[in-house]
Amino acid sequence: MQDKKVKESLVVMTELVLPNDTNTFGNLMGGRLMYWMDIAAALAAMKHCGSPVVTASVDNISFESPIKLGNVVHIEASLTRVFNTSMEVHLVVHGEDALHQYKYKSNEAYYTFVSLDPNGKPRKVNQLIPENEDEKKLYDGALRRRQLRLILGGKMKPQDAVELKALFMKD
Amino acid sequence: MQDKKVKESLVVMTELVLPNDTNTFGNLMGGRLMYWMDIAAALAAMKHCGSPVVTASVDNISFESPIKLGNVVHIEASLTRVFNTSMEVHLVVHGEDALHQYKYKSNEAYYTFVSLDPNGKPRKVNQLIPENEDEKKLYDGALRRRQLRLILGGKMKPQDAVELKALFMKD
Amino acid sequence: MQDKKVKESLVVMTELVLPNDTNTFGNLMGGRLMYWMDIAAALAAMKHCGSPVVTASVDNISFESPIKLGNVVHIEASLTRVFNTSMEVHLVVHGEDALHQYKYKSNEAYYTFVSLDPNGKPRKVNQLIPENEDEKKLYDGALRRRQLRLILGGKMKPQDAVELKALFMKD
Amino acid sequence: MQDKKVKESLVVMTELVLPNDTNTFGNLMGGRLMYWMDIAAALAAMKHCGSPVVTASVDNISFESPIKLGNVVHIEASLTRVFNTSMEVHLVVHGEDALHQYKYKSNEAYYTFVSLDPNGKPRKVNQLIPENEDEKKLYDGALRRRQLRLILGGKMKPQDAVELKALFMKD
Amino acid sequence: MQDKKVKESLVVMTELVLPNDTNTFGNLMGGRLMYWMDIAAALAAMKHCGSPVVTASVDNISFESPIKLGNVVHIEASLTRVFNTSMEVHLVVHGEDALHQYKYKSNEAYYTFVSLDPNGKPRKVNQLIPENEDEKKLYDGALRRRQLRLILGGKMKPQDAVELKALFMKD
Amino acid sequence: MQDKKVKESLVVMTELVLPNDTNTFGNLMGGRLMYWMDIAAALAAMKHCGSPVVTASVDNISFESPIKLGNVVHIEASLTRVFNTSMEVHLVVHGEDALHQYKYKSNEAYYTFVSLDPNGKPRKVNQLIPENEDEKKLYDGALRRRQLRLILGGKMKPQDAVELKALFMKD
Repeated sequence: MQDKKVKESLVVMTELVLPNDTNTFGNLMGGRLMYWMDIAAALAAMKHCGSPVVTASVDNISFESPIKLGNVVHIEASLTRVFNTSMEVHLVVHGEDALHQYKYKSNEAYYTFVSLDPNGKPRKVNQLIPENEDEKKLYDGALRRRQLRLILGGKMKPQDAVELKALFMKD
Repeated sequence: MQDKKVKESLVVMTELVLPNDTNTFGNLMGGRLMYWMDIAAALAAMKHCGSPVVTASVDNISFESPIKLGNVVHIEASLTRVFNTSMEVHLVVHGEDALHQYKYKSNEAYYTFVSLDPNGKPRKVNQLIPENEDEKKLYDGALRRRQLRLILGGKMKPQDAVELKALFMKD
Repeated sequence: MQDKKVKESLVVMTELVLPNDTNTFGNLMGGRLMYWMDIAAALAAMKHCGSPVVTASVDNISFESPIKLGNVVHIEASLTRVFNTSMEVHLVVHGEDALHQYKYKSNEAYYTFVSLDPNGKPRKVNQLIPENEDEKKLYDGALRRRQLRLILGGKMKPQDAVELKALFMKD
Repeated sequence: MQDKKVKESLVVMTELVLPNDTNTFGNLMGGRLMYWMDIAAALAAMKHCGSPVVTASVDNISFESPIKLGNVVHIEASLTRVFNTSMEVHLVVHGEDALHQYKYKSNEAYYTFVSLDPNGKPRKVNQLIPENEDEKKLYDGALRRRQLRLILGGKMKPQDAVELKALFMKD
Repeated sequence: MQDKKVKESLVVMTELVLPNDTNTFGNLMGGRLMYWMDIAAALAAMKHCGSPVVTASVDNISFESPIKLGNVVHIEASLTRVFNTSMEVHLVVHGEDALHQYKYKSNEAYYTFVSLDPNGKPRKVNQLIPENEDEKKLYDGALRRRQLRLILGGKMKPQDAVELKALFMKD
Repeated sequence: MQDKKVKESLVVMTELVLPNDTNTFGNLMGGRLMYWMDIAAALAAMKHCGSPVVTASVDNISFESPIKLGNVVHIEASLTRVFNTSMEVHLVVHGEDALHQYKYKSNEAYYTFVSLDPNGKPRKVNQLIPENEDEKKLYDGALRRRQLRLILGGKMKPQDAVELKALFMKD
């Protein structure tokens, strides 16, 4: 079980928006996008830990620019940090209008996965090595996001979330 | 554009977990569940506002009990509160093993939708009337969840989120 | 193997009509609707008998009001009567145009399922208790529908179908 | 609008049973089969009348031999009789286990379609010419099946169904 | 393991072009058609050899006449020749516009399959008997196509492909 | 309409092999893979020419290493050469077993697309600039592959295919 670099977990997924993926305005439905993001993120997690994984949680996602029918969806997923048996995956989604040669950011998200052993029990994950500034920033933020997840899941009291609390205290 | 009660927006969705919906452990993939939840929540929002809607954001979701292949997914979606042109929808998901006559809670979530006019621009939404204690509690909490969404989306400073900040200040 | 009430078998299913579900007029294809009805009915049967089930027959269905693209399909399925190893399920289907806030009845149907043991052989089903007038009426009619099914399947002679024959004799 | 022979309407459809088409016993789900039958029957009706069609009704179907995962489904659909603006289609379904070189009859059914003009209104259908004994027998039976459909749809009183009534009167 | 005639392997497949099968011009996507052709060809190969098969190669396909949304796809697949453990299947695809009563050829192709034993290893295939002139012509051409496949796959030198070479030598 | 580099057309697609994508041996069906390859290649062509495209032909594909259920499919597509209104796209497909951390080449292929104007007529394509050795080699080979396509499509006589003929003449 060896340590791995962030970039070794990178997964790039490309999908075409077909009629059944869209709502009445011809825009990609949010649920379909979250479905593709879940698969991309799971693949990134599996590349890192080399075992089956299961989605543990998905952080707040907001959908900014709608992606149109016939446009292309680009999803990039890579790990940010490992917490014992779980991994946080960062996703960035872009839409691309190939006809107008225009690419735009659609949204960002964090999915968390748990690594499983052959009996389906949580399994310790090998370490992740952030290399550049961006990767280190995502690594640091992972702690704060994890505290928020624990609070929202009722597993931590707000006042115990040291890193997160500091944010609310600033003037 | 008349006011409506929370219960008028209730949508009940039932799905069967088929092979293509599952991962290698035979459990429903998180992304497939989020796809179904998105449709159920959008239908609840449309029932309330009577216009097309688009997914604006999805709050933190954590997946507790996995739902197995061949089990049944029950999704209940209803509105909690209206914010000018947007609506927050509360979802509760249960799994059911019909063979063992066993029903269990899988997860809960909040999806937010924006109501659109015929040109695809945001459109003011009619009011929502919470009636019982549970509905009022969800109505009150919606303000705090909205502040968190705005902070996470970079549209509000943590120290300005009065209701949310109070949570972190308690001893 | 305990007796159960009709209402314990109720399954409510909600589906959104997507582009691939429609014909060239933008109406839900009959075959797609029968597919959803089959799943809803099978779930109702499984809730009652607690074992796997297989579709044995589907009674005459007529499609009255077409359901449009983007509309919502509501399916309600519950048991009417048990016959040794088989169960008759009654389905009522409504369409809903959420934008025009208009709900309409689409069609009704009866599906019959056989309960199976772990070897795939027919298995005796626990009794069903009809409680109110509607449930009792459906319970009584089940005998007549079963005679028709047996005649159409070549397993009963028309002149032996006492209940059904009476209908044709009236002046 | 010229008359056509029965055999000109013949449609042969072949499908492979994939995992998502099956229930927990690995058998083709009845609803999936009815979906394929609806498409095959609609194509046969369109070949005859040369206009879009919509499913009006489906007669009683019973499912005899289950079709297994990996087996092949053969559907043959052709018209039996035309009634002003509607057409009755007869379907015969066989399963085939290609590995064991074994083909078996699964079920038979009658679907009825209405021909539509460009405004979606019912449109008169050109005549159908039965040629051999089998085709003439199906042509004759169509009248009796139509009476049963009208009775079951509440559009005819049982005692007015002359052909059908005769069946119940025999000793 | 008995010899079989070409016509015993014939598979006829019919599909309706639905919205999700089409590109932005409302034409059937080439990839969807190749998917259906693969299934039809595999079924023809399985009918002949009575064992599971796997796609080994697909010859050059060119797409002439686009097939439109709502049109019908007709695929006919039958064997041309057997090579020890592999079978070449010939496919002819027609489109049909049922509304305008117009049928047109779309394309032709050759798929090659390998027969597998229960361990997934290649398995000798029973002989194929071509009967009429067309079948014999396809049988003869199979040798030339096989040489081209071997050359393109880097398994034969062009100058060793006797039959194929003759084609380039003619003045 | 400006010239573009080969690398600007690169499309990377990642898919997870789900149960419905596999045959009875649990291997990805060839037809499903060709479907994904068609979409990846079309996206690469659209990125280059900035207009809708339609699949014109697919060159001989052979499937070497089967890709298993639960494995990941990696498709890389980029342009090799432009011919007036058409573009040749080169695809390389790898499978990846994330659990055993093993990646293997599955197959290679060439798809050809035609660029379309708003009326669906062929449209002149901007030039493509190969930069490194590999790109230039693919660029040179494109002429030979095009001659083979024209011969196989009956649009060129073998003896007129100068580049291709040279291959067969060598001793």
